Amino acid sequence: MAALLSDLGTEILIPVASVIGIAFALVQWVLVSRVKLSPEKQSAGGNKNGYGDFLIEEEEGLNDHNVVVKCAEIQSAISEGATSFLFTEYQYVGIFMVIFAVLIFLFLGSVEGFSTKSQPCTYSKDTTCKPALANALFSTVSFLLGAITSLFSGYLGMKIATYANARTTLEARKGVGKAFITAFRSGAVMGFLLAANGLLVLYITINLFKLYYGEDWEGLFESITGYGLGGSSMALFGRVGGGIYTKAADVGADLVGKVERNIPEDDPRNPAVIADNVGDNVGDIAGMGSDLFGSYAESSCAALVVASISSFGINHDLTGMCYPLLISSVGIVVCLVTTLFATDFFEIKSVKEIEPALKKQLIISTVLMTIGIAIVSWIGLPAKFTIYSFGSQKEVANWQLFFCVAIGLWAGLVIGFVTEYYTSNAYSPVQDVADSCRTGAATNVIFGLALGYKSVIIPIFAIAVSIFVSFSLAAMYGIAVAALGMLSTIATGLAIDAYGPISDNAGGIAEMAGMSHRIRERTDALDAAGNTTAAIGKGFAIGSAALVSLALFGAFVSRAGISTVDVLTPKVFIGLLVGAMLPYWFSAMTMKSVGSAALKMVEEVRRQFNTIPGLMEGTTKPDYATCVKISTDASIKEMIPPGALVMLTPLIVGTLFGVETLSGVLAGALVSGVQIAISASNTGGAWDNAKKYIEAGATEHARTLGPKGSDCHKAAVIGDTIGDPLKDTSGPSLNILIKLMAVESLVFAPFFATHGGIIFKYL
Amino acid sequence: MAALLSDLGTEILIPVASVIGIAFALVQWVLVSRVKLSPEKQSAGGNKNGYGDFLIEEEEGLNDHNVVVKCAEIQSAISEGATSFLFTEYQYVGIFMVIFAVLIFLFLGSVEGFSTKSQPCTYSKDTTCKPALANALFSTVSFLLGAITSLFSGYLGMKIATYANARTTLEARKGVGKAFITAFRSGAVMGFLLAANGLLVLYITINLFKLYYGEDWEGLFESITGYGLGGSSMALFGRVGGGIYTKAADVGADLVGKVERNIPEDDPRNPAVIADNVGDNVGDIAGMGSDLFGSYAESSCAALVVASISSFGINHDLTGMCYPLLISSVGIVVCLVTTLFATDFFEIKSVKEIEPALKKQLIISTVLMTIGIAIVSWIGLPAKFTIYSFGSQKEVANWQLFFCVAIGLWAGLVIGFVTEYYTSNAYSPVQDVADSCRTGAATNVIFGLALGYKSVIIPIFAIAVSIFVSFSLAAMYGIAVAALGMLSTIATGLAIDAYGPISDNAGGIAEMAGMSHRIRERTDALDAAGNTTAAIGKGFAIGSAALVSLALFGAFVSRAGISTVDVLTPKVFIGLLVGAMLPYWFSAMTMKSVGSAALKMVEEVRRQFNTIPGLMEGTTKPDYATCVKISTDASIKEMIPPGALVMLTPLIVGTLFGVETLSGVLAGALVSGVQIAISASNTGGAWDNAKKYIEAGATEHARTLGPKGSDCHKAAVIGDTIGDPLKDTSGPSLNILIKLMAVESLVFAPFFATHGGIIFKYL
Repeated sequence: MAALLSDLGTEILIPVASVIGIAFALVQWVLVSRVKLSPEKQSAGGNKNGYGDFLIEEEEGLNDHNVVVKCAEIQSAISEGATSFLFTEYQYVGIFMVIFAVLIFLFLGSVEGFSTKSQPCTYSKDTTCKPALANALFSTVSFLLGAITSLFSGYLGMKIATYANARTTLEARKGVGKAFITAFRSGAVMGFLLAANGLLVLYITINLFKLYYGEDWEGLFESITGYGLGGSSMALFGRVGGGIYTKAADVGADLVGKVERNIPEDDPRNPAVIADNVGDNVGDIAGMGSDLFGSYAESSCAALVVASISSFGINHDLTGMCYPLLISSVGIVVCLVTTLFATDFFEIKSVKEIEPALKKQLIISTVLMTIGIAIVSWIGLPAKFTIYSFGSQKEVANWQLFFCVAIGLWAGLVIGFVTEYYTSNAYSPVQDVADSCRTGAATNVIFGLALGYKSVIIPIFAIAVSIFVSFSLAAMYGIAVAALGMLSTIATGLAIDAYGPISDNAGGIAEMAGMSHRIRERTDALDAAGNTTAAIGKGFAIGSAALVSLALFGAFVSRAGISTVDVLTPKVFIGLLVGAMLPYWFSAMTMKSVGSAALKMVEEVRRQFNTIPGLMEGTTKPDYATCVKISTDASIKEMIPPGALVMLTPLIVGTLFGVETLSGVLAGALVSGVQIAISASNTGGAWDNAKKYIEAGATEHARTLGPKGSDCHKAAVIGDTIGDPLKDTSGPSLNILIKLMAVESLVFAPFFATHGGIIFKYL
Repeated sequence: MAALLSDLGTEILIPVASVIGIAFALVQWVLVSRVKLSPEKQSAGGNKNGYGDFLIEEEEGLNDHNVVVKCAEIQSAISEGATSFLFTEYQYVGIFMVIFAVLIFLFLGSVEGFSTKSQPCTYSKDTTCKPALANALFSTVSFLLGAITSLFSGYLGMKIATYANARTTLEARKGVGKAFITAFRSGAVMGFLLAANGLLVLYITINLFKLYYGEDWEGLFESITGYGLGGSSMALFGRVGGGIYTKAADVGADLVGKVERNIPEDDPRNPAVIADNVGDNVGDIAGMGSDLFGSYAESSCAALVVASISSFGINHDLTGMCYPLLISSVGIVVCLVTTLFATDFFEIKSVKEIEPALKKQLIISTVLMTIGIAIVSWIGLPAKFTIYSFGSQKEVANWQLFFCVAIGLWAGLVIGFVTEYYTSNAYSPVQDVADSCRTGAATNVIFGLALGYKSVIIPIFAIAVSIFVSFSLAAMYGIAVAALGMLSTIATGLAIDAYGPISDNAGGIAEMAGMSHRIRERTDALDAAGNTTAAIGKGFAIGSAALVSLALFGAFVSRAGISTVDVLTPKVFIGLLVGAMLPYWFSAMTMKSVGSAALKMVEEVRRQFNTIPGLMEGTTKPDYATCVKISTDASIKEMIPPGALVMLTPLIVGTLFGVETLSGVLAGALVSGVQIAISASNTGGAWDNAKKYIEAGATEHARTLGPKGSDCHKAAVIGDTIGDPLKDTSGPSLNILIKLMAVESLVFAPFFATHGGIIFKYL
């Protein structure tokens, strides 16, 4: 039985969808670029500014050219800082990349003793596959490709964000709707470029590798997993390094500025303010871009490698094989339509409409994508096929696979909504946290921690149900495509996720450029919605990470040749116990790093306030560069130990203790890491929005807690500061930890299966 | 082959050791009671006071009879409050106890349809065992016995502590050494009474049950597991209820008293001060007593039930069968000798010697116990015997079992030392946390959380190594006896653990009785050491809980008739994932409960300060009773949901989803719960001692951070307050969660194996 869609159709559809995605991103970019940052053209454009002006809000400061010049200046300072940091970071990770590439080649090459002879395949013993040395070489190449694509994704995201932030500020003069569209379009540029680019590179790589591998699909897709490893390992350094950078600056700036000196956030007198804004771009944007690209690459690789040993791979059914890529292709088109709902079909007229508009994006993309999945499952899959399931074959129907993908997609939506409920200040959980500030910072922290713990419950059940249903229907392949389902609307997810830090920066620029209070209020409203969407984005990232790493774990177990992972064997159980500990070890490192770097930053900021005359009065400029340097140095130095922990654990455990213990470690890290990741990012998001709730004073209740500077507000600021490393450093890095250890184990599985478990062998 | 020790010797040794333990406790009690609380006799005893007076420290206030009267008054107020709370609590848990006893009887009775016919045994099919109905009945009886013994243990502990606290205060007038000995002796009364009583009741129960069961040891020891369930379920309510009580009062008192009103801790003007002191006794003493009794009962039951289906049980080798009880018997004797080192062989002459003296207790007891274990293993075990290991038999030598017990014992010591390192302010981790207060409460919290996460690493490796070694040597029986090894010095552990809250209360009484600053300093020094020992005690409780629940888990799996728990099956994996979530859910409930109760307390305390004239001036007495009532009501109401979560989860999962999913839940809760429990209790302990470090100002560094009332100190108080529910409510309850779910699953295993998994059966 073959799929309705011909192989040729598949070969055309995937690249075409990628190109459409890239083209759409470029169109959005052109639209953003119409907001001019040079004063002459700005005044020429007048208040029309490219698109019709139907907003009823008051427009102000449109003719003040100084403001535009100032915004342009600040933007270029941020952009320069971010670029310079990323280049420094990339130098270090570049060295790591080369070393690790050599390791991959040596470890995998040694499986057959660097023999260049072809060998019988692992799963179909009667056919001949390419030598292990070739797999070593191609895995290394795909690792490098994945790594470079990931770095490129992060860099691109950062460039777009720094291009967009001052433009969003300038548009905020015309009203919240205009500013929203600019920020959202910029997010979309990033979302579509990353999604389409990731798909295209993967597609091209597969086709190029096929030139060598020919009919050996087993070896081909095994090598392709290196792409996921490359993407994910760069994401780790991006998230951790960027996370430390941004939070050291943020915490340092807040502790002295807001708490001690009582100056507003993003005040230009604060020496750490530029570092803080640079941080948003290198941490929340570049780091997150690399992260979600990594998730996407890994889930595709997990699905492909499992498919390659099922009937698609054995019968060389190209369309069936490319089902995961077809899902992503349709996802791009669906997200394109979804984006139009935000930018063109509807318009934002007031602050209250921002959150619902972003929420609608999630709902629309999910509904449309469900239809998309149905179509792809119908035309892209044969009615019946068999799936490899730990040594046995399982017959699956195409409608069953539809359910697998769809349940992943909808579980993502559930996680998104639960995250919103627990982190948006429109609902009671955050309001309760804000209320607990009445009795001081301590109760605020107790309530916030409890909120984070509680927010874990429903997402875990959603993930558990997805796992159970998709595994029951299509074994590990079902889980892999469920993960893809959750990530299929990644372009929209990234767009609303990137929107947050762009708005945050826009607010910072407004403050620094000395723009009016009203404009700051507008960007603050954008930013508050951004905190929630950032938490939602993290929810997606974590949920999908859980599914992806389970799928990778399944692929690893298959590839390592073990068919059960029995908790009752001590090898596995101690792995499980130690694995469950790793997220704590990792979090301890990253939290401590942020804390130490923030202490240094605080001392520097205090020093500047104390020794530079005229700084508080605004007559002298602070020394921004030293603060940028502190953040840069701290993040480069401090990202190495946690990075090493994650990258070395699978290698050490696999080599010394073997695949059973490693399986335990992966399962333990997965089930424990997911919980900490969700609770950390929701706790942080809730504290941030509890503070914003008090500051905004939009309800009667909020006004009894405020205003800014009240005891309640001070308690809320403490919570917000504690939440910073939780939600932007530890939490989001943890989902990379669980994915990365799984994909690394998968790539090194042939080595571990042959040479691993030295200790037990010689004991 | 038989053991060197005859059955008669065993039958004599165990009760004799218990009686010695009880006698020793009584002797200690007599010594404590020589400190008189009535002024007349006090003056009659003079400053000799029973034991020679060789302390060089200055004695003061010895002749002030008013102080003695005041202390006696306060003590009786605390004692009354604690007694009244425990009676209220016991009424509620009494209802639960009856309902649950009925449930046990019905569930287990239904296994064979309430048939009164004898049946073939589960493990040796060719012999006949007693009917399931008998097992149901005897399990119910042993459940009730365990529950009552647990309640009795908690009550007794509370009585002793409230008897000792004012006496410790009075002795503090004569110097820190005298106060230390009084507090420590009182702790010893509790430790020895609980350990000896637990052993004796268990021993008598076994012998009584044997009258009915005769040769059916399988049924006998299966029914005995109810004893562990009873002990542990009462411990849960004790820990949670007591924990909420004490921390609601503590947090409430601190937030208004220390933070808002700037009055010292335990100031009699604070309306919540009596509730706070009552809380120490019902939470840290009664709760902890029930908890460790539960651990002890469960590890004994786990070892016995595994032994009953190995060669000891099959060959009816009584001495071999009683090996776990022999270990505990020797433990009592070893702890007795160890105690003499603290109370008689050495003496404390200055504040600095307190912590080392307590540490020496741990070391001495561990070294002596190692010899004790060697002797018991040599005379109490045959040279070779076979152990049941998931369907197969494993031959074990007696020296191998020695290693199993010893590694558990020494792992406990390692955990104890690591805990001390991370929570004592003599070392850099706590000093770093104190230092981070320079930049405010936020960095203090970030550093504290990071410290807690980091402190997990070595204990987890210690537990993992114990598990691996003991499992490799003697399968699940090895793990069960390793847990017993860790708990074999329970009498000493409890003594140094109970010493902490007694000292805390003594300080409170000194403050309330208006005693001099110097006396308060002495009790503070005792208390600071107590914080560390409390953390060490929790470390032991958690480490042993991990081993115990793994052993119970193994017994459950054996009894439920499954031989593998494969992570790769979705049933197990979703169990693992949801199980890992349960500790978060549970913590969310308990933290929120403390937070809400504390809010109410704060409002009441504020109300009293604002409306009662002359309260701040000390001319009017506050209304202590209302605060006591708030704590009581909150803890009774709030202990039900978390209690229900823990008690119902195994029942629901086992009945609906079956034993595989339940196995996953147990393993997940175990590996995730251990981490949160350790990190929560160490984080809390570290914050508390960081605060004390600043207050004491004993080093140059500490003085730069202080004094009391400085910004640094305020930040430290916030950390301390946040740590309260972490270290005294959530953290310590979590180890009960993991043990209790395991022992409950074990008790209900026959039911789940027969009728469980309804959903999958009908799907």
